[in-house]
Amino acid sequence: MNYIEQLGTKARAAAAVLAGLSTGEKNRALEQIGRMLLEKEQDILTANERDLEEAREKGMSQSLQDRLRLTEDRIASMAEACRHLAMLEDPVGVIEGGGVRPNGMRITKVRVPLGVAGMIYEARPNVTVDAAILCLKSGNAAILRGGKEAFHSNQCLAGIMRQALADTGLPEDAIALVEDTSRETAVMMMKANGYLDVLIPRGGAGLIRTVVEQASVPVIETGTGNCHVYVDATADLDMAVNIVDNGKTQRPSVCNAIESCLVHRDVAGKFLPMMKARLDAHQVELRGCPRTKEILGDCVTPATEEDYATEFLDYILAVKVVDSLDEALEHIRTYSTGHSECIVTKSLDAAERFQKQVDAAAVYVNCSTRFTDGNEFGLGAEIGISTQKLHARGPMGLTALTTIKYLINGQGQIRP
Amino acid sequence: MNYIEQLGTKARAAAAVLAGLSTGEKNRALEQIGRMLLEKEQDILTANERDLEEAREKGMSQSLQDRLRLTEDRIASMAEACRHLAMLEDPVGVIEGGGVRPNGMRITKVRVPLGVAGMIYEARPNVTVDAAILCLKSGNAAILRGGKEAFHSNQCLAGIMRQALADTGLPEDAIALVEDTSRETAVMMMKANGYLDVLIPRGGAGLIRTVVEQASVPVIETGTGNCHVYVDATADLDMAVNIVDNGKTQRPSVCNAIESCLVHRDVAGKFLPMMKARLDAHQVELRGCPRTKEILGDCVTPATEEDYATEFLDYILAVKVVDSLDEALEHIRTYSTGHSECIVTKSLDAAERFQKQVDAAAVYVNCSTRFTDGNEFGLGAEIGISTQKLHARGPMGLTALTTIKYLINGQGQIRP
Repeated sequence: MNYIEQLGTKARAAAAVLAGLSTGEKNRALEQIGRMLLEKEQDILTANERDLEEAREKGMSQSLQDRLRLTEDRIASMAEACRHLAMLEDPVGVIEGGGVRPNGMRITKVRVPLGVAGMIYEARPNVTVDAAILCLKSGNAAILRGGKEAFHSNQCLAGIMRQALADTGLPEDAIALVEDTSRETAVMMMKANGYLDVLIPRGGAGLIRTVVEQASVPVIETGTGNCHVYVDATADLDMAVNIVDNGKTQRPSVCNAIESCLVHRDVAGKFLPMMKARLDAHQVELRGCPRTKEILGDCVTPATEEDYATEFLDYILAVKVVDSLDEALEHIRTYSTGHSECIVTKSLDAAERFQKQVDAAAVYVNCSTRFTDGNEFGLGAEIGISTQKLHARGPMGLTALTTIKYLINGQGQIRP
Repeated sequence: MNYIEQLGTKARAAAAVLAGLSTGEKNRALEQIGRMLLEKEQDILTANERDLEEAREKGMSQSLQDRLRLTEDRIASMAEACRHLAMLEDPVGVIEGGGVRPNGMRITKVRVPLGVAGMIYEARPNVTVDAAILCLKSGNAAILRGGKEAFHSNQCLAGIMRQALADTGLPEDAIALVEDTSRETAVMMMKANGYLDVLIPRGGAGLIRTVVEQASVPVIETGTGNCHVYVDATADLDMAVNIVDNGKTQRPSVCNAIESCLVHRDVAGKFLPMMKARLDAHQVELRGCPRTKEILGDCVTPATEEDYATEFLDYILAVKVVDSLDEALEHIRTYSTGHSECIVTKSLDAAERFQKQVDAAAVYVNCSTRFTDGNEFGLGAEIGISTQKLHARGPMGLTALTTIKYLINGQGQIRP
């Protein structure tokens, strides 16, 4: 039995206990975690400082150091998230359907936890708390493998959470930190069939691709978003400028930010200068097709095929003038990662065709793709945004960490 | 682009058309497939005879030959399945939820096809029709890779179905047969990320294991069932005999048949001889623990650990006398594949503990595990029985071949 299988065996036993808990018992543990994170603030900051020191010694970039850093505010946010989760509805136990069969058997389809969830993530220590408490609320044990850069922070946070579980009479092993952060343990998690019911990678595109390619346990793929806004011939151009600007510049580093703007040729001459004027405030680099360049001039870099395929996550926007809605749909079909896509239009027909034909988790008419988010969608909490179609698609709330079970009650029925 | 990617590209284009069809259009194609299967009966039987001849030459076993064989009756059943599916409700377009957000955006969660589904299966040519028509009804394109033993049958059936699609104005490429049945094409399907939205293996445990271990596309694992009946101290023993007999002997080769009987020590002395008397009609071999052997004598083979872990799919039953419900739960936790588990009891407390604590797709009280089946559960049709927890669990109906999409309609909303 390898290291992950050992953790998995303990986690499986803890999961069996969690599955039987009442919502109240889980909520008390969440509240205790929240309280203890605040009480142990100094311990957390000290552990985090150790990680930061090592990071500085190794010359980690400022932006990565920022992800790694915990502050009093960030700890307070984690504690607040615990209290917030305690107030959310418990997905476990919800009856999703059922009825009495012709032979008198009663079938009840009931929502239950998945069991043991694995998370592989990178340098952000707040994911340790976030993932653990979402799993706890939904009745799952969690096996957490954060990046080695955040090791001391993660160890401290996991220790606090395990203590809080013990304090409230729950099994500590419901939250397990993978303390060996070598590449081997990541591979072990990907192959831990029978121990992990799901594996969710959270982080950059490289990490996610590796997990999707190598895992034999069920995976939920999250987060890659090559999102488009299509400005139709009938669009309200002021609205279109707002939506493109919001999609590109409000927070360029996230998956629901837009990477390309497609514009119908009938309005390109008027729209593109309006758009450029707005985006100039953030010095957005435009990479455009020849027609874009004709309209906007030398400020436009010629766009390559690769530009249209790239999730820039930066102040860069690819632009293309298209002849028709069909050409826009074809372009989106070619380059979309199936995350979030938007049309700006006044035409009912164009809106309906776009929403019907675009194959993405979230398809918008006349509003910003930046809304693809668990909280914005009213899910209360978010584990991630699924870009696969199996199990969950789009923003995942607590329900995405559950499955169903059929309970069948009879009076001696046998199959004829 | 490899062979599967080529098929996948055409299938993806066909899937885009399928996703936009009305239920009526899909039903007309299903009815045409049913009609043509009957019209072309002779062609099908001739192609099947070619496969059977080759099978006989290669010395294929009688039971495998039987799976491979098509008869007028079997063809009639396939045609009937098409008509039946045409009458079922279409899962596509069903609105699963939604509402208006505080900022006025309307969110609609709507059910849509998965896109392109891959199936890898073995020598049964009826799976070719079964899988294709389930995919068609749910709006998915299908890429079908049957075993080489059934090649001529499959080619004939796929050709007929493609013709029926063309006759009714649908894209032929919605149903694609993988004509190269080498091992390489199976591997290509497992790695066809971006081309296949789901891969479902149907067949023996070896095939399923290989696909689960090697695939990087999302997989639905089906069909392994090491199922138990636990006869509680308070059980109605006549009922228990019926349920064990039905579970073991009504059709031993299927996944919802039982493989083990656990019996509480308080009733073992009375129950086991009753059970043996009934099972003797089918000459069921019993492999038991020492206490079982003490009660039933030399007719019992000593059971090994491996026996308790084996899905016999045969007239063999493992038996164990347990001291308590807890011991039964522990045994099931150790050996269950999470398919179907049953308790026979008159105790409300025992029934509730069993249904709460057993982690399986279907947990029965006082009725046979043989009911774990799409038709018995009232799903109308069945693609398979999922033994994983992600996406689908237990019998899968048409809905298991769909996903959801969020449609968001606004009036210019941007994220503050």
